[in-house]
Amino acid sequence: MGHRVAIAGASGYAGGEVLRLLAGHPDLEVVAATAHGNAGAPITQVHPHLRSLAGRDFVPTTSEALADADLVVLTLPHGESAALAARLPEGTRIVDLGADHRLTDADAWAAYYSGPHAGAWTYGLPELPGQREKIATAERVAATGCYAVATTLALAPVLAAGLGSPDDVVVVAASGTSGAGRQAKPHLLASEVAGSLSPYKVGAHQHVPEIKQATGARSLSFTPVLAPMPRGILSTVTVKPTRPGLTSEDVHEALALAYRDEPFVHVLEPGVWPQTAATLGSNTCHLQTTVDRDADRIIVTAAIDNLGKGAAGQVVQCANLMLGLPETAGLSVDGVAP
Amino acid sequence: MGHRVAIAGASGYAGGEVLRLLAGHPDLEVVAATAHGNAGAPITQVHPHLRSLAGRDFVPTTSEALADADLVVLTLPHGESAALAARLPEGTRIVDLGADHRLTDADAWAAYYSGPHAGAWTYGLPELPGQREKIATAERVAATGCYAVATTLALAPVLAAGLGSPDDVVVVAASGTSGAGRQAKPHLLASEVAGSLSPYKVGAHQHVPEIKQATGARSLSFTPVLAPMPRGILSTVTVKPTRPGLTSEDVHEALALAYRDEPFVHVLEPGVWPQTAATLGSNTCHLQTTVDRDADRIIVTAAIDNLGKGAAGQVVQCANLMLGLPETAGLSVDGVAP
Amino acid sequence: MGHRVAIAGASGYAGGEVLRLLAGHPDLEVVAATAHGNAGAPITQVHPHLRSLAGRDFVPTTSEALADADLVVLTLPHGESAALAARLPEGTRIVDLGADHRLTDADAWAAYYSGPHAGAWTYGLPELPGQREKIATAERVAATGCYAVATTLALAPVLAAGLGSPDDVVVVAASGTSGAGRQAKPHLLASEVAGSLSPYKVGAHQHVPEIKQATGARSLSFTPVLAPMPRGILSTVTVKPTRPGLTSEDVHEALALAYRDEPFVHVLEPGVWPQTAATLGSNTCHLQTTVDRDADRIIVTAAIDNLGKGAAGQVVQCANLMLGLPETAGLSVDGVAP
Amino acid sequence: MGHRVAIAGASGYAGGEVLRLLAGHPDLEVVAATAHGNAGAPITQVHPHLRSLAGRDFVPTTSEALADADLVVLTLPHGESAALAARLPEGTRIVDLGADHRLTDADAWAAYYSGPHAGAWTYGLPELPGQREKIATAERVAATGCYAVATTLALAPVLAAGLGSPDDVVVVAASGTSGAGRQAKPHLLASEVAGSLSPYKVGAHQHVPEIKQATGARSLSFTPVLAPMPRGILSTVTVKPTRPGLTSEDVHEALALAYRDEPFVHVLEPGVWPQTAATLGSNTCHLQTTVDRDADRIIVTAAIDNLGKGAAGQVVQCANLMLGLPETAGLSVDGVAP
Repeated sequence: MGHRVAIAGASGYAGGEVLRLLAGHPDLEVVAATAHGNAGAPITQVHPHLRSLAGRDFVPTTSEALADADLVVLTLPHGESAALAARLPEGTRIVDLGADHRLTDADAWAAYYSGPHAGAWTYGLPELPGQREKIATAERVAATGCYAVATTLALAPVLAAGLGSPDDVVVVAASGTSGAGRQAKPHLLASEVAGSLSPYKVGAHQHVPEIKQATGARSLSFTPVLAPMPRGILSTVTVKPTRPGLTSEDVHEALALAYRDEPFVHVLEPGVWPQTAATLGSNTCHLQTTVDRDADRIIVTAAIDNLGKGAAGQVVQCANLMLGLPETAGLSVDGVAP
Repeated sequence: MGHRVAIAGASGYAGGEVLRLLAGHPDLEVVAATAHGNAGAPITQVHPHLRSLAGRDFVPTTSEALADADLVVLTLPHGESAALAARLPEGTRIVDLGADHRLTDADAWAAYYSGPHAGAWTYGLPELPGQREKIATAERVAATGCYAVATTLALAPVLAAGLGSPDDVVVVAASGTSGAGRQAKPHLLASEVAGSLSPYKVGAHQHVPEIKQATGARSLSFTPVLAPMPRGILSTVTVKPTRPGLTSEDVHEALALAYRDEPFVHVLEPGVWPQTAATLGSNTCHLQTTVDRDADRIIVTAAIDNLGKGAAGQVVQCANLMLGLPETAGLSVDGVAP
Repeated sequence: MGHRVAIAGASGYAGGEVLRLLAGHPDLEVVAATAHGNAGAPITQVHPHLRSLAGRDFVPTTSEALADADLVVLTLPHGESAALAARLPEGTRIVDLGADHRLTDADAWAAYYSGPHAGAWTYGLPELPGQREKIATAERVAATGCYAVATTLALAPVLAAGLGSPDDVVVVAASGTSGAGRQAKPHLLASEVAGSLSPYKVGAHQHVPEIKQATGARSLSFTPVLAPMPRGILSTVTVKPTRPGLTSEDVHEALALAYRDEPFVHVLEPGVWPQTAATLGSNTCHLQTTVDRDADRIIVTAAIDNLGKGAAGQVVQCANLMLGLPETAGLSVDGVAP
Repeated sequence: MGHRVAIAGASGYAGGEVLRLLAGHPDLEVVAATAHGNAGAPITQVHPHLRSLAGRDFVPTTSEALADADLVVLTLPHGESAALAARLPEGTRIVDLGADHRLTDADAWAAYYSGPHAGAWTYGLPELPGQREKIATAERVAATGCYAVATTLALAPVLAAGLGSPDDVVVVAASGTSGAGRQAKPHLLASEVAGSLSPYKVGAHQHVPEIKQATGARSLSFTPVLAPMPRGILSTVTVKPTRPGLTSEDVHEALALAYRDEPFVHVLEPGVWPQTAATLGSNTCHLQTTVDRDADRIIVTAAIDNLGKGAAGQVVQCANLMLGLPETAGLSVDGVAP
């Protein structure tokens, strides 16, 4: 009855969201949820919202615990996925939500991460041209980073259609706190975050090479900002138009065309700007654009739920494709608002 | 394919949540969503999170727009439900999320509401003893008020089991802002609400007679508090024990017994207190209790999503019962967190 | 020029607020700010909002570092104040914001705290009858706990005037997260707290004996709630009236009379309920009351800034009294809002 | 005793903050606070945090009510300041917090505002070179727009020092909700704003010509974002370096040099990024910079309190200068945090 899925690192926020989505999925069932420090603890102790899993416990993160699954989801710190994946049976499908297998370029890896480069897997963003088919036949898929999802969905079609220049792309993207994980760090305390916006890793975020690789951008200024909300990413992407006279309508049309058959990417009605809250709990990305003629910049903004399309939703979408299920199974187009 | 549901007053927050739940319901479909001021507007203009309804518009609130449905949900200001219901075909099932038909006592109605008393319908809280069966055969159901859901689920079993006294019940309950609706009032502005807790209608809230009626409480001090969050109700209910020596375990057991077969009411593991965020987007109520021997008070706290079990979730639960569907269809036990 | 003040434990939230108030105080100057783990670090590294202290560092918490001051403020975990105080010169005035010296009753101490009972100092709530004078001549003052400030200011005059019964007092009080300190604990993460209300230590909070001692309450049910905001306490206090026919006006008058000369306690205009945000950054307490005749309960609600009147503001108020300065020096009556 | 100040439009958020600052100012006193709809109402009814003004009422906004003051602060909707100013006595000093007199270029005015161009007054940003002296001798000063303060303080020295190019400046700036005023609009409801980031007026915000005028930027892409917090602006400013090899240290030094004598502009220690919460209630601006060599962009971020340095603080700073008072009188360098 349904495909068997195991999740390694299920005690984190992304892992918890994978559990939530699988608990409501018609064709997938959770056979194991592993953890390190929380191994042995009831799942509801860590994720009190997952009452449907009451009575089940986290098990230690071992290859044995995962071996029995048709598909394994890895939500581990970077550097740990590759080692664990190597110990899994060959036929096991894997979706890695970590960064280990995203980058094709070993130099880019070395510049932004530590440790040896594990090599790239199929990139898990089905909305990129041709990517859906690759994912469907892949055994190993590297899911996209959260900022990279929002930014790439906004940027890729503009570059692909030749409307914007791949040089001098400027991005400012703000994320809710769950993107920083559930480890107790002082700057993530509610007292610190409430009422505060603060940039971090300015010009040095590890999603930069990933976005370049996925979009073909050659120069990318990226400023991430921590925002006082639990979920959501708003990415503001600006590029130089490649020709004078380009209109907002031109860009809107190009985005609409690129995503016309996509169930989860919504180019909003002209004049309506995305709100991150509208994507909460969903697997959607909301997009809008304008061309600022005076400043000679195309602006595209994208809103996602960083734990949805930015993480767990995307994982389930890839898993659906890999297992031959309907791509939208178990995923919501509608957000939970207000 | 499935039962046809129409929603009157679908542009409010509760109406929007009914739409969201129905959009994901396997057996119910929305045939009409009506509004007053927003009639003619796209649903996504008011509810940008409901992308699955893109392309559909609100229609004016008329009996004609609703007549065609198997079941009609009314989410209207008090005083309007009765008039509209009277103009609907006799066989049409109705769930009224307004207050018009909750109170059996005309004097209680007169003390807390204005206008004529329309008379009581079947009360829509399936977890009350015997109520599930009544709802299943009812044509007209009056859904429970949001504070009343949380408070009644905490209080009723304690009084029914004879553990607590119905005299001198003291309740303090805090609600997220969506409980106050989407009308633009100054005190509901984000700038006003952020970082602030404030009581209102102290000792004068209209849910008091409803809770008394549902639980048998004779004296009920009720202080509602507006909390800086969009959703969620936390109700803290304290009652005098009827006998010395009553323990936390006794009360926990009574609650667990009362709800042992309930899919949506969860008595948490001893020592674990409810968090409203864990119920977000779900139809659940989380309960916990202790007996403070020193103060001679039983304390039961309940957490719900005021738009979930407190409103739209409860409506769908009742609709499922009335239409012979599985009671849990289209409803989530798991919340969306963090 | 002015009195010299040293603060032990200045890297916490309460300590930071003491520093902020002293930085703006006309007659007090900070001669030392000590810390444990942060000793040696710039003050602005821990408190980036305190730009006026740029260039100054935390020093280790030793009696030497404090010995040179006219007045020492202790903001240390319970159990540490007594030991440190014993090593300070005899003439040094001390205000202890910790719990060590609040309780006169050794049994009450033993029931709610660990370690030996250090004995009580003069209790630092100037608004209690006769207390102002005691503080003014005291060398050692034990500042009031944050919940105890709000609850006592609401409750004491009602009991003192004989309007309410000291038996069966029921209190539910919610606090912002800064009340829990800046130690990085998982349940205090912004992702956990956002959008969530949750009770804790129900019926077992250590401020219960303190409130009883300060007000004469004999039975006190106390439920603390963590609220999604950085600062603020709203305490809802309910007591039984001692006589039938008591009106809201009677209680309002008694409160107004009790506080008519108090600069920091404001009984709001009838019908206006306190909002915690209105007290942010100030040393004020806002009060309002009603009598619920139907439920036979007097309800008094109090709002304070837990770091203001609930901690650092109160410390400065006591320090002013102890040093013969104007009681209001360096303290604000106005909050920072919105 | 002290200069007499009147405030027109004192019932809004900026007006309320002016009142708060004046209530604590050693040399200024409020002689009149005017309002339109709230005329006749107690000030504390609209601003419950301003307890020091209990007993005082708003008066209608007439020139008579203002004529008696040494200095008048106008916080009115654009288009209303000019008319009112024309009816004030000639010797009356005026600081206009509205937009009417900011722009020197009538075409820029016509492009972004409606109605006739009233002509420019002395621009109220003392930190611009030479501007402090002009303000000190001016009778009429146009205070800076909130976004313009943060963006100009970040951008101006970089352009003035010739380090960055005035062409192709890209700015994304997020503001708390108080910047949108206290008029009850649906999109400003707490339920809508909570947990949401959303852009608005993208490429069309009226502060663009103001920033260009103040900084000399020739091309400015500006994307404003509404953030889920009551106060604060974070402006992320990126410009192209004018020469290869420019380092973060170079830009940091230039900023530090430009502001070395400024009491309210703080270039943070290298590596420390601004947090809006650290500026709450203060008149400060926190700055930090980096040069992203890979993307060939200088990035400067600025944090302010939009009601502080972005509005009321700046007004008081200008008033101090105009009246010959110490520039920092009544203003705080330290924020209120957490």
